[in-house]
Amino acid sequence: MVNIPKVKLNSGQEIPQIGFGLWKVTENTADVVYNAIKVGYRLFDGAFDYGNEKEAGVGVKRAIDEGIVKREDLTIVSKLWNTFHEKERVEPIVRQQLEWWGLEYFDIFYIHFPVALQYVDPKDSYPSGWNNLEGKVVQSKAPIQETWEAMENLVDLGLAKSIGVSNFQGALLMDLLRYARIRPSILQVEIHPYLTQEAIVEYAQSEGIAVTAYSSLGPASFVELQWDNAKSAVPLSVHPIITSIASNHNKTPAQVVFRWATQRGLLIIPKSNDPKRLQENLESASFDLTNDEVKQISSLNINLRFNNPPNYLGCLHIFA
Amino acid sequence: MVNIPKVKLNSGQEIPQIGFGLWKVTENTADVVYNAIKVGYRLFDGAFDYGNEKEAGVGVKRAIDEGIVKREDLTIVSKLWNTFHEKERVEPIVRQQLEWWGLEYFDIFYIHFPVALQYVDPKDSYPSGWNNLEGKVVQSKAPIQETWEAMENLVDLGLAKSIGVSNFQGALLMDLLRYARIRPSILQVEIHPYLTQEAIVEYAQSEGIAVTAYSSLGPASFVELQWDNAKSAVPLSVHPIITSIASNHNKTPAQVVFRWATQRGLLIIPKSNDPKRLQENLESASFDLTNDEVKQISSLNINLRFNNPPNYLGCLHIFA
Repeated sequence: MVNIPKVKLNSGQEIPQIGFGLWKVTENTADVVYNAIKVGYRLFDGAFDYGNEKEAGVGVKRAIDEGIVKREDLTIVSKLWNTFHEKERVEPIVRQQLEWWGLEYFDIFYIHFPVALQYVDPKDSYPSGWNNLEGKVVQSKAPIQETWEAMENLVDLGLAKSIGVSNFQGALLMDLLRYARIRPSILQVEIHPYLTQEAIVEYAQSEGIAVTAYSSLGPASFVELQWDNAKSAVPLSVHPIITSIASNHNKTPAQVVFRWATQRGLLIIPKSNDPKRLQENLESASFDLTNDEVKQISSLNINLRFNNPPNYLGCLHIFA
Repeated sequence: MVNIPKVKLNSGQEIPQIGFGLWKVTENTADVVYNAIKVGYRLFDGAFDYGNEKEAGVGVKRAIDEGIVKREDLTIVSKLWNTFHEKERVEPIVRQQLEWWGLEYFDIFYIHFPVALQYVDPKDSYPSGWNNLEGKVVQSKAPIQETWEAMENLVDLGLAKSIGVSNFQGALLMDLLRYARIRPSILQVEIHPYLTQEAIVEYAQSEGIAVTAYSSLGPASFVELQWDNAKSAVPLSVHPIITSIASNHNKTPAQVVFRWATQRGLLIIPKSNDPKRLQENLESASFDLTNDEVKQISSLNINLRFNNPPNYLGCLHIFA
């Protein structure tokens, strides 16, 4: 079994630095999760919005029932969707999400976006995405402080061991740290060689907050969504700087990009449907880049952010 | 007298699109302000932190006493420094600042930065800057919501006609709009052709919030502070794209850069010690750039932000 590096959170939890991301896992989710556990994955990064928590839970249950892992060996992560930011919405939807997973607690629970949207009942639309039932993006009035207090309540209730935020900027995170009774343990943001995010990583790490990089392969994560800016970017897998470093180490380009992230202390949550690649991703921390190689890869930064709501919604300038 | 375009704020106030910025005005401030009023300036952008409010007030009083302007013809702007973010600190320091100016109300009062620092008594250090009396940057726990509620109270008391925020990012402004009883009328941020800030401008304007560009000449504002990144940047006044457009219109490079901002709907607050340039700045809206020229200037964007606290303090990642 691969030895995956661990990261210790400010909550005291130790979690694997490399996990499996459930975004865009739409088919055979139970098998995908079960097989990932068999390969050695111990962290699964889910979300209400991914629409596959029930199926993921089936895979987890099968692995536990077969004695492959115990619940406490797993780090199960999920996220609060934008439509549940009002304080009275948080606990009920988390209990619902836990029921879908068949679990009694999440190891990590994030605020998915610093965006509060009008409530949509999951019975009417699941996952509801950004639009209300009339197809419109309508904000709600719940401030982040209200939502964070409800997140803290999850820890009090034992429904989440650690809580975090995703897609937050520096000044908003700084504001949260002023009123947080329980500090966030972890921040999840888009990070890849075209969006290196030195400033927010430095800030979060200086505050003792771990950072998870999502979409760490950059454009590759968005090409399947047919996004133009992803299709027009040079794929990292063929970028000469990446391929040259990969051949130095006899590794794949993806392993090089992942290692660049984990050597910066970041957690990563790649996904793959390919068993060989699943293994390669998990083994991507088994070699070291030189400092110069890390710098070369960081120099690819062009502040190219894919997951930016105005790009696909025309509003919600959370990264402005 | 020059006809300065006006901007109508969501508070109902009409204010001049071109004003005079008091940052770094350290000598003969009273004369500088008095002379600017004689030239036709009607908006003065001050701040506790600029350390010159008493002297600026002397200049204003002289102009009013001589009948050159009436109080209601002027738009007097000031800002809350970081050390006064606790709710009980806001009203007293504003009353102190008004006393320095010799005024009964500010037309616009901003939160200067989304940064709350340990209180420093102005009697012990004025202006105190970022450090406490021990020379350390120490944050306080006042959330922006607490400070904003105290800002709203200023409007209730008639101490400020409009309130705004400065150096805020998108997600933090979005959060403020969730709890604001009185919405901000105006946002002031660094904007120049090397930092064009399309996203935050689009966001603020879409919310009916006016935007003031500070340091609108870019590096020129910071060269006098001896900042390396300002000294190493090509001055906009000699950039070939700017000089070529300037000669097309028989205007100065500075006028072109200012017009680029005001055609985007931005307010500007240049300063000058030179009487000729003072006049030129005020007249910079008396011609129009073509759309193509605006685009050419916008294409100079390199996301070069000068006023970023980590650059000069090593902390406070408010723009991360």
